[in-house]
Amino acid sequence: GFPGNPGLKGERGESPLAVRSAFSMGLTSRLAVTNVPIRFNKLFHNEQRHYDDTSGKFRCVTPGVYFFTYHLTVYYRDARVSLYRNNKPVMFTHDQFQENNLDQASGSIILQLQAGDEVWLQVYGEEEHGGIYADNTNDSTFSGFLLYPDPPAASRRR
Amino acid sequence: GFPGNPGLKGERGESPLAVRSAFSMGLTSRLAVTNVPIRFNKLFHNEQRHYDDTSGKFRCVTPGVYFFTYHLTVYYRDARVSLYRNNKPVMFTHDQFQENNLDQASGSIILQLQAGDEVWLQVYGEEEHGGIYADNTNDSTFSGFLLYPDPPAASRRR
Amino acid sequence: GFPGNPGLKGERGESPLAVRSAFSMGLTSRLAVTNVPIRFNKLFHNEQRHYDDTSGKFRCVTPGVYFFTYHLTVYYRDARVSLYRNNKPVMFTHDQFQENNLDQASGSIILQLQAGDEVWLQVYGEEEHGGIYADNTNDSTFSGFLLYPDPPAASRRR
Ligand SMILES: [Ca+2]
Ligand SMILES: [Ca+2]
Ligand SMILES: [Ca+2]
Repeated sequence: GFPGNPGLKGERGESPLAVRSAFSMGLTSRLAVTNVPIRFNKLFHNEQRHYDDTSGKFRCVTPGVYFFTYHLTVYYRDARVSLYRNNKPVMFTHDQFQENNLDQASGSIILQLQAGDEVWLQVYGEEEHGGIYADNTNDSTFSGFLLYPDPPAASRRR
Repeated sequence: GFPGNPGLKGERGESPLAVRSAFSMGLTSRLAVTNVPIRFNKLFHNEQRHYDDTSGKFRCVTPGVYFFTYHLTVYYRDARVSLYRNNKPVMFTHDQFQENNLDQASGSIILQLQAGDEVWLQVYGEEEHGGIYADNTNDSTFSGFLLYPDPPAASRRR
Repeated sequence: GFPGNPGLKGERGESPLAVRSAFSMGLTSRLAVTNVPIRFNKLFHNEQRHYDDTSGKFRCVTPGVYFFTYHLTVYYRDARVSLYRNNKPVMFTHDQFQENNLDQASGSIILQLQAGDEVWLQVYGEEEHGGIYADNTNDSTFSGFLLYPDPPAASRRR
């Protein structure tokens, strides 16, 4: 007999287009409470709602490699924050304030996250380090995005 | 009869390779004019020419989610800038200058843009807030890149 | 005879997920040596080991467009660094220090790199510009990632 027809064409390769995670939020006013995650309520971008502005935490849905960055207006007093991952402070930013010399402090980090991991910013230390300021024309921001989703299990096996 | 040959290998997955947009520019000298978009003329990267160094504006060609960041050398006087999107200031960075204490100020934001949207930096307020400095060994920069192109209409339907 | 069965389904297409490059490192202590690349030894992320913490240099494996960013704690003295690409300083960040006014300085750049290109941070100028600080609760960091891999030769031909 004759050979059969060729098989079906393979599936289209995976695309990173499908998996997205990005948020960009700002403070609406001067930081008042320092012993909890900083709640950024001003919305620049949060399409997937992976940043929860009631808890102040980003929660990882898609496992992979993420980039986070923040920019803080330092005013009235010193500022000292830590970027937390699941209750553990992993990076620290400190800036001292002097009268009439409002400053800017910023940080960036790349982290491999698992689904469910939480990342947030919080003042590190006492209230005296809570000099993080914002108003209608002064921003303090926190942004992050998925850089590389983890390859699916099938890809890993190859 | 015999089974047919295997089917053809599937197409390469959709790749963000096709759609790229990234620019990274610097100031060449101290800011002189403050009531127009800041024109960054020092070229680090601008392959797609989506940043126009004659207007000082980035113009979105590919709809999608973009990341922008800037780093300013604050010298001679205070600096106060806003990142504009289509004539509307959306984010603000302020840093006060004190004699012998040159500073750095920076900001980042993630924005969903439509084709034709323009993004730029401009001094916010009076000339007295124009303390943005650059020379051969001091940079003030503005960079941005397409993070996630909008899915094509076909993908959206699925 | 009858035709055989259809062949096997083709292989799944390739994914751009395969090419990744990202590092995020910090200083472990105050900068001591200023005339060589700054060696960031605190590991946040360096899966592909493209950042070499013995040389202090990132070495490009996958040609493409990269994003780099750094955040420095300025303490004890002024800080002036340059981002080098293959022995050439391409970008400069400067921040002056005043007593009791610890500062933060940062920079970002997007660069097209070829395989083998090296990128690092180094103090620019004299030791008096080496005021870059870190300890257990103060970070100075250097991060980078591949934004867009160069299209493969096959894609370029199309
Ligand atoms: Ca200042
Ligand atoms: Ca300073
Ligand atoms: Ca300061």
